[in-house]
Amino acid sequence: MRRGARPAGPGEITYSSYLKLDRILSAQEPESDRLGVDAHDEMLFIVVHQTYELWFRQILHELDRVQSDFAQTPVDDWRMRRMVHSLHRVHEILKLGIAQLDVLETMTPQDFLDFRGLLSTSSGFQSLQFRLLETRLGLGSTRRLLYEGKTVDADMSEAERAAFRAAEVGPTLRGQLEAWLMRTPFVTGERYAFRTAYREAVVAMLAREREWADDVAQTDAAEALERAARAFAAIFEPNPEAGWIMSPQAVEAALFITVYRDHPALHMPNALLGALMDIDEAMALWRHRHALMVERMIGMRSGTGGSSGHDYLSRTAREHRVFSDLFRLSTYLIPRDALPELPAEIERRMGFVYAAEEKR
Amino acid sequence: MRRGARPAGPGEITYSSYLKLDRILSAQEPESDRLGVDAHDEMLFIVVHQTYELWFRQILHELDRVQSDFAQTPVDDWRMRRMVHSLHRVHEILKLGIAQLDVLETMTPQDFLDFRGLLSTSSGFQSLQFRLLETRLGLGSTRRLLYEGKTVDADMSEAERAAFRAAEVGPTLRGQLEAWLMRTPFVTGERYAFRTAYREAVVAMLAREREWADDVAQTDAAEALERAARAFAAIFEPNPEAGWIMSPQAVEAALFITVYRDHPALHMPNALLGALMDIDEAMALWRHRHALMVERMIGMRSGTGGSSGHDYLSRTAREHRVFSDLFRLSTYLIPRDALPELPAEIERRMGFVYAAEEKR
Amino acid sequence: MRRGARPAGPGEITYSSYLKLDRILSAQEPESDRLGVDAHDEMLFIVVHQTYELWFRQILHELDRVQSDFAQTPVDDWRMRRMVHSLHRVHEILKLGIAQLDVLETMTPQDFLDFRGLLSTSSGFQSLQFRLLETRLGLGSTRRLLYEGKTVDADMSEAERAAFRAAEVGPTLRGQLEAWLMRTPFVTGERYAFRTAYREAVVAMLAREREWADDVAQTDAAEALERAARAFAAIFEPNPEAGWIMSPQAVEAALFITVYRDHPALHMPNALLGALMDIDEAMALWRHRHALMVERMIGMRSGTGGSSGHDYLSRTAREHRVFSDLFRLSTYLIPRDALPELPAEIERRMGFVYAAEEKR
Amino acid sequence: MRRGARPAGPGEITYSSYLKLDRILSAQEPESDRLGVDAHDEMLFIVVHQTYELWFRQILHELDRVQSDFAQTPVDDWRMRRMVHSLHRVHEILKLGIAQLDVLETMTPQDFLDFRGLLSTSSGFQSLQFRLLETRLGLGSTRRLLYEGKTVDADMSEAERAAFRAAEVGPTLRGQLEAWLMRTPFVTGERYAFRTAYREAVVAMLAREREWADDVAQTDAAEALERAARAFAAIFEPNPEAGWIMSPQAVEAALFITVYRDHPALHMPNALLGALMDIDEAMALWRHRHALMVERMIGMRSGTGGSSGHDYLSRTAREHRVFSDLFRLSTYLIPRDALPELPAEIERRMGFVYAAEEKR
Repeated sequence: MRRGARPAGPGEITYSSYLKLDRILSAQEPESDRLGVDAHDEMLFIVVHQTYELWFRQILHELDRVQSDFAQTPVDDWRMRRMVHSLHRVHEILKLGIAQLDVLETMTPQDFLDFRGLLSTSSGFQSLQFRLLETRLGLGSTRRLLYEGKTVDADMSEAERAAFRAAEVGPTLRGQLEAWLMRTPFVTGERYAFRTAYREAVVAMLAREREWADDVAQTDAAEALERAARAFAAIFEPNPEAGWIMSPQAVEAALFITVYRDHPALHMPNALLGALMDIDEAMALWRHRHALMVERMIGMRSGTGGSSGHDYLSRTAREHRVFSDLFRLSTYLIPRDALPELPAEIERRMGFVYAAEEKR
Repeated sequence: MRRGARPAGPGEITYSSYLKLDRILSAQEPESDRLGVDAHDEMLFIVVHQTYELWFRQILHELDRVQSDFAQTPVDDWRMRRMVHSLHRVHEILKLGIAQLDVLETMTPQDFLDFRGLLSTSSGFQSLQFRLLETRLGLGSTRRLLYEGKTVDADMSEAERAAFRAAEVGPTLRGQLEAWLMRTPFVTGERYAFRTAYREAVVAMLAREREWADDVAQTDAAEALERAARAFAAIFEPNPEAGWIMSPQAVEAALFITVYRDHPALHMPNALLGALMDIDEAMALWRHRHALMVERMIGMRSGTGGSSGHDYLSRTAREHRVFSDLFRLSTYLIPRDALPELPAEIERRMGFVYAAEEKR
Repeated sequence: MRRGARPAGPGEITYSSYLKLDRILSAQEPESDRLGVDAHDEMLFIVVHQTYELWFRQILHELDRVQSDFAQTPVDDWRMRRMVHSLHRVHEILKLGIAQLDVLETMTPQDFLDFRGLLSTSSGFQSLQFRLLETRLGLGSTRRLLYEGKTVDADMSEAERAAFRAAEVGPTLRGQLEAWLMRTPFVTGERYAFRTAYREAVVAMLAREREWADDVAQTDAAEALERAARAFAAIFEPNPEAGWIMSPQAVEAALFITVYRDHPALHMPNALLGALMDIDEAMALWRHRHALMVERMIGMRSGTGGSSGHDYLSRTAREHRVFSDLFRLSTYLIPRDALPELPAEIERRMGFVYAAEEKR
Repeated sequence: MRRGARPAGPGEITYSSYLKLDRILSAQEPESDRLGVDAHDEMLFIVVHQTYELWFRQILHELDRVQSDFAQTPVDDWRMRRMVHSLHRVHEILKLGIAQLDVLETMTPQDFLDFRGLLSTSSGFQSLQFRLLETRLGLGSTRRLLYEGKTVDADMSEAERAAFRAAEVGPTLRGQLEAWLMRTPFVTGERYAFRTAYREAVVAMLAREREWADDVAQTDAAEALERAARAFAAIFEPNPEAGWIMSPQAVEAALFITVYRDHPALHMPNALLGALMDIDEAMALWRHRHALMVERMIGMRSGTGGSSGHDYLSRTAREHRVFSDLFRLSTYLIPRDALPELPAEIERRMGFVYAAEEKR
């Protein structure tokens, strides 16, 4: 505890003072009120966006810790657990954010029109926290879609742009993931290379399947196998134009973690990859749902702030993905019984000390 | 538009200025930060409660309009539609409030302990907006459970208590519902009394069923019918001790609306009753879930603010019901084919003008 | 009650016999069991798809009644109410269908591989009920995307294809909506044409706004108004290539219902339009989420049954929309205070008889 | 693969044959259809219950594997991971089951009456799978509430009763949890006893707090500490009448796992405890919501099958808890900085081999 600091005694903190409700509950100032216009639903519009901003704040708070933990080398096991925990929480928040659109959609387009014209050029496009969130997850400027020819920082204030730029040059979760994956032990050692073992297993599996396919003269199946063989090649001799974001070594390590997830030392790493996919998927779903809502609310007009919102949002849902590499991994999985066995020594080292000692 | 008021021009309002994000996002001041204690999850605790308060604000905003509409005599048809719409929105918000506990439950009891001792005697029990919400729905002081011997206003500031008292003496949604129900046209007229017609229909139906039961000598069924007959009596000769909150006439009108909901003039009234039940049910469910969460989070200890929270919350879930009368209505329903037909004149008057004119 | 039919007496029906649980619970026959392969998650895969089929069955049951009600001329008011009720139920089922993917996604890609190769060419693409559902909502063959060059009935059995063709030539909800909209009274009469009144209101509104824009020399705003003027023209002089599915008269009637929803006779019609949009949106969201799940589950490989699933599903989410016209309506809305007033006579006729009589 | 078994070739399995849709989709036989009565919503009633039964089937399938894994001594680490995974899936299914009531509640009480009288004495009370589920989780006969004086197997057929009895004498998840907890290594060893260390830490913490309380003469706080001291005593010198279900040693081990969850060897055990609480909480919530729905649907009448459903269901929600001991654990937690440190040797043994070797 900070020197001189003293916890509050009974009655010194109230619910209202603790939560700063004076600030929170005085922050709804509908333009329609100021102008004396009747627009009941502007309050909903404000409250929905304010709750989103509060949730973004919370997500950024989780990313603070996750990214600080991820910056350690190596990442301690107890940190891994809480990183997974935080990312799971982020996923729950995103799911709530999607559900929250059920509430916003109780506003009809006609009710929105009551105040839509009063909002000047302000727009959700200007949410700094959302840009920080995207950037810190790993959506780089080079991959961002332009929006009516504008970059996302076009309308930012100086202070906002500074914060945004700082995030852009700072570490991203995706970058940290890649660096961490490339350090994964066991993937390539002196006497063992996962790459070689996995490739051999794939070749053997394909050979077995091809043999069976030949037997029954199934041209289609044979062709499918050819395609599969080429696909498997891709992961080990990746074509730089094939759309991978991470390096081949990082992808290889992610595959290693995925297929050997049963080993204790990979429980949490595997859960980490799953949590990142959950987040990427929830973000995409949110964008899709947001796009549908905008289409319903304002049709083919431009959004508040002048955006031709639906199309832009719909495209970001498809293209602003951060962890798509992890989704592509499943292309390269092979059935459990075709997986190469790990050397006993590696298996032992990925287990618990007490278990190893008992076995002796 | 207010004289002299002018809508903002391009750039005059930004997303951030519109939403007062300076206030909203500066309102998270964890005690653990002040004291230099490590308690990552206090931010979540604060944000969750702040979003709840924002939603309460929105619900109160909806109640403002609903109650103002309900205060009209008669309530215009277009007001009815928007009242139903607002109440449906309140229901969606309550469902979101329940889902939001999924996020809060990502906080473990051990993580809560990191800052639980720092919260002094502050407690969710002190939320003024929640008390206003309950009160304005219709939970009167006489029906409120005491909490450790305390009334809900025990810890309120002067200003809070004044607001609470004002709500207590003001109109409640339940009271307005009752008054409105008692004014329902058609229920009792010169040549028609729903009460009589329905009672006769019930008697006839019970007679048919009793006959059938006698045929097959089913003592159980006969007994069940006796019980049903007594139950039906209850609605028309209500025992004041039977737990009804509303007057017999109001209950009777609610039954009328329910069974004749197919008639155009009852579409919205019937939807209104449904929306009120949705809200009552969602409130009860929220309380149940809140009680379970408190049990999980703090076990048998007292809550923040010293509450023996779980039991109290669990009891409020069962006893702090506002529209239970509407739930009890289903006890008195009879199958469609046993329903008494409405006089043609009443049917005509509950229809649309254009339809009536076309029929001529 | 059917002649000779007799309700079951006590004990004659049990929970299990009523629900035919012998059939329901004997219908899980994993291929992995038959082949003696270890694939725990195949049960989940089967159960998830079976529950989907049960829900499709329920949706088709609702469509049976909705479409039969919609086939009436005119559609009775009490039928309108239950149509809205049924469509609302369909929406709730679709929301559950989306939530259900949370359960399916607990299956990892590696676990799916345990049995994926055993499923032969069977695929969700072959669900007859889903095709019936799409078709009966109004997705015609001409608008369906091909899937690997195949039409959706390519793999159907004779019986399935017959059922599918019957649905294709039968009435669709979209078609019934259009016919019903074109019959909407009041839109165009001897002394009143909504088209004219609305156009004049739009022109007046645009003139006011243009004037204001000129004042402040805001070129951007002026351009925006030009665009808006052209957009408004579109609804009244529709370009056949503009992507509308319904006829101009039908669209016009839908606009009439939307802007005058406050009038009692339009309460349910307006709710009907809302419910159809809810359904269209939920279907699109389901498709999006399904596409994301397929991407995660099988990456860039083809789906069960050989589909390159993700892309196809993602495109259907964007293009297999049925009620997109209703979404586009919001493009043509104007603020409440710019709306033309209805003639008193029309207003009266859209009200209730009892209200009109009281006013006299 | 089973000898002689052959995977199906292309076209040999269709979606419909794989899912046995002939059985699934022919299993809806409304009594109202048989009797020629108009009762549209009976289909919904049937479909909702059939989907519940399918989900129960899936939950029992998960319990099969979880319980078989739990029967191993010791439980392998890879089994632990998949147990947690399965229990997480069960939780997701239960959440879906709760959401599913949103669909059922689109049936109004009046619509239910259309067929309610036709259901004879059948009732959800008779669901064998639900009884198996409860029993296998660990709800023993001695703790079950009677329902109108009847035990749950009162109406079962011979075959059903045999299955139920078999489950009753078989291992339960709760029993397996207790046995596994009692085998937890490290809790009590030659040179270390968690019991002693924790008690000392509690005493030291309480002493510090009491001192601080004395300083400021806070009688209330002092009393609270007394109460806390007594509460802490309870876990180590448990009163058999205090309502614990598990043995003191098992509870102690659960506490050990909870407070030292950061250590790798406790990651999965801690996740296991969390998943069991999730399930217990979801079951309770489901029961509460079911009770509310029954109240709404049939008021104070008895349920189908003659149950006075609401009260019974409401009581089971409170009393049919299986893992309440785990919820009570939080009563005994102490802040992180008061936790006793683990001996280095134990810490080492609860880590990974590779980490221990690197440290050398």
